[in-house]
Amino acid sequence: MNIPKKSYPRIVIIGGGFAGVALAKKLSKQEVQVVLLDKHNYHTFQPLLYQVSTGGLEPDSIGYPIRKVLQNFPNFYFRLANVERIDTSCNTLKTNIGEIDFDYLVVASGSTTNYFGNSAIEKYSMAMKTIPQSLNLRSLILENFEDALLTSDLNERNALMNFVIVGGGPTGVELAGALAEIKKGILPKDYPDLDTRLAQIHIIQSGDRILKGMSKKASAKAEDFLEKLGVNIWKNVRVTNYDGKTVSTNTDLTFETATLVWAAGVKGATINGIDGDDFITRGNRIIVNEFNQVKGFDHIFAVGDIACMKTPDFPDGLPMMAQPAIQQGEQLGNNLLKLIENQPMKAFTYKDKGSMATIGRNKAVVDLKKWKFQGVFAWYLWMFVHLFFLIGFRNRMVVFINWVYNYIRFDREARLIIRPFKNKNLE
Amino acid sequence: MNIPKKSYPRIVIIGGGFAGVALAKKLSKQEVQVVLLDKHNYHTFQPLLYQVSTGGLEPDSIGYPIRKVLQNFPNFYFRLANVERIDTSCNTLKTNIGEIDFDYLVVASGSTTNYFGNSAIEKYSMAMKTIPQSLNLRSLILENFEDALLTSDLNERNALMNFVIVGGGPTGVELAGALAEIKKGILPKDYPDLDTRLAQIHIIQSGDRILKGMSKKASAKAEDFLEKLGVNIWKNVRVTNYDGKTVSTNTDLTFETATLVWAAGVKGATINGIDGDDFITRGNRIIVNEFNQVKGFDHIFAVGDIACMKTPDFPDGLPMMAQPAIQQGEQLGNNLLKLIENQPMKAFTYKDKGSMATIGRNKAVVDLKKWKFQGVFAWYLWMFVHLFFLIGFRNRMVVFINWVYNYIRFDREARLIIRPFKNKNLE
Repeated sequence: MNIPKKSYPRIVIIGGGFAGVALAKKLSKQEVQVVLLDKHNYHTFQPLLYQVSTGGLEPDSIGYPIRKVLQNFPNFYFRLANVERIDTSCNTLKTNIGEIDFDYLVVASGSTTNYFGNSAIEKYSMAMKTIPQSLNLRSLILENFEDALLTSDLNERNALMNFVIVGGGPTGVELAGALAEIKKGILPKDYPDLDTRLAQIHIIQSGDRILKGMSKKASAKAEDFLEKLGVNIWKNVRVTNYDGKTVSTNTDLTFETATLVWAAGVKGATINGIDGDDFITRGNRIIVNEFNQVKGFDHIFAVGDIACMKTPDFPDGLPMMAQPAIQQGEQLGNNLLKLIENQPMKAFTYKDKGSMATIGRNKAVVDLKKWKFQGVFAWYLWMFVHLFFLIGFRNRMVVFINWVYNYIRFDREARLIIRPFKNKNLE
Repeated sequence: MNIPKKSYPRIVIIGGGFAGVALAKKLSKQEVQVVLLDKHNYHTFQPLLYQVSTGGLEPDSIGYPIRKVLQNFPNFYFRLANVERIDTSCNTLKTNIGEIDFDYLVVASGSTTNYFGNSAIEKYSMAMKTIPQSLNLRSLILENFEDALLTSDLNERNALMNFVIVGGGPTGVELAGALAEIKKGILPKDYPDLDTRLAQIHIIQSGDRILKGMSKKASAKAEDFLEKLGVNIWKNVRVTNYDGKTVSTNTDLTFETATLVWAAGVKGATINGIDGDDFITRGNRIIVNEFNQVKGFDHIFAVGDIACMKTPDFPDGLPMMAQPAIQQGEQLGNNLLKLIENQPMKAFTYKDKGSMATIGRNKAVVDLKKWKFQGVFAWYLWMFVHLFFLIGFRNRMVVFINWVYNYIRFDREARLIIRPFKNKNLE
């Protein structure tokens, strides 16, 4: 990898998501060598991926070059690499661009879509965990509408205009809200020769409420908002199969759709070498202690979605969200410096800053520790928080301008099929 | 295609570039049915493609949904389609989505890269005529720098950091200027462990001056600007071959580079059915008369790059640029309405509004009819004109913000490898 060997200890971080970047920033001005590996050269602001899928934001405004985040920091090395194996016996990583040894290793590889072993769903459904996936979904939605124009078969046309979203978490809810607004504000103008009123948006949720990670009040209000937007919510229904046309469930319900978005679960993106039952728990996450250490090692850590840290409040592990990732990354930065200086590390405590989800124009639900509220003010807060956490002044400006424009004009202009999903010859 | 047959005459336009869109807009409120076919669902503002390739602008800010341009216009139909054949004997088009007949046909299919039959160059070089191509070039540039870090072979590393641009027209010149600024302002910060001073930027021009479509003064000044930016200009040199590593020329000169950008020529993107010597002239363009009519037909037209209209000032045909395309599109709109009402059409006259090119920060050359100037004011004018001709308020705002930001910060943040070109597994 052509990284010089220094007298400083070398800390290798796998993954440039919220946790990896927060950690690297903490270490950037210290007497350590930091090597960050990621298979993308950019950090993805995942909470806004659904806006890329629905044409509200351009992908470049929610991605940020990792090299730029850590520009001007000495002893920082980024490498575009896919880590294939961790060899804990000799402290080495095997990657597609060669081997690298480490003094300390931090696994921050995040999470990936969990299909729960259903290969048909994996094959035919759309995920929304990365920018390329979100662009694929954007293309598919637009291509389906173009195709809907071409058919005279009413059932086929409706299937092309229907959306089935599996999973009523924040991703599913926010996507459904955005699609409902597109249906109302854009489709009738873009496709005057289609009866887009027939387009149906469905959320299928296996549990008895959506946003189950939030308060019951938030769930109820979100359902109310979605229903007013015309979204159909199916609770206590589990999707069992999808063949590219028909969605089957564990009930009598079936849905005809050309677009199934799978937002029903994620699992840890484990890496060979730290896997197997010794290390892994529910959700394919690596078990870590209160210092984010991986069982059996002093010098190997895991942070963010991939790490399962159990606390009294979260006996199944902290939630797989941005906040625990950022907080763990920052604290591990401090702890690593302590460890190197042979000082005792500080146990991680999670500061729950609350959670929120938006459901279209002027509507959001917010759960803070002491205050739960919904509506317009929640929506403003949602926007403010997301702008605040975006990396980079330019990205914030561009996102802000787009939001103002989209709000005033009831529009989303980034509806370009730049990477065709169905008909790749039309690129 | 599922387009209803109306009592109005049907005008089919192939291509949603400058000419096609200008024409469609003219016809949009008239008693004609307009069907526009394009293999992209967006209009591309080609003059700014080089800024996408160099990370200065996001692709979505120079593309604009064609449906949105003609929203709210009755009798307008867009179809995402690739036209495979024109059948002039029965006034029908064959496309990948079926057949369509026309009363009037306008070919506005634009131009494509001209490799002059050199298949090795076609295979290994990069073109910059579409948004996907520009994104591929952006990825390749960034991937080459990532790869340069990995090699200890000095020659290989330099080849990865070198750029050879073939063709000294506006595209080549503007790209070279942008690359020179990246070399100076961004690479040293992004790649502190690479000696990016060794990166070389070459323009190879077969003629004896660059910007040969502009005044000699503009050429001389552009050369001066480029040389001050460290760009090497090789005149009277013709590239003969490229094997992915070494560029051969008709002289003793060779260049080692992993990035060859072919901006040495374009040719008309003809369509089967209107091809062959009867219709086609130099540059693979369709011969048209002063009404943009294709030889032998009253009801078939060609406009823009694909059309070769010879005038006393331009005996080889009007230049393949945005202005002739827009003007022809608009005038043909008026003429078609006259033709339908059996009134005489008006011959096209080209209003030469001048030409311009920018060569990086604060530097541009402008040739107006009565005034030729270079430098900062030319640069402001260049920006103003490009913002003015961009379609859409949001695009203008986003481009403007990016330019201001890039100018103040000496930066270009859209340097994300979203669609890997070399290592597609790293998406």
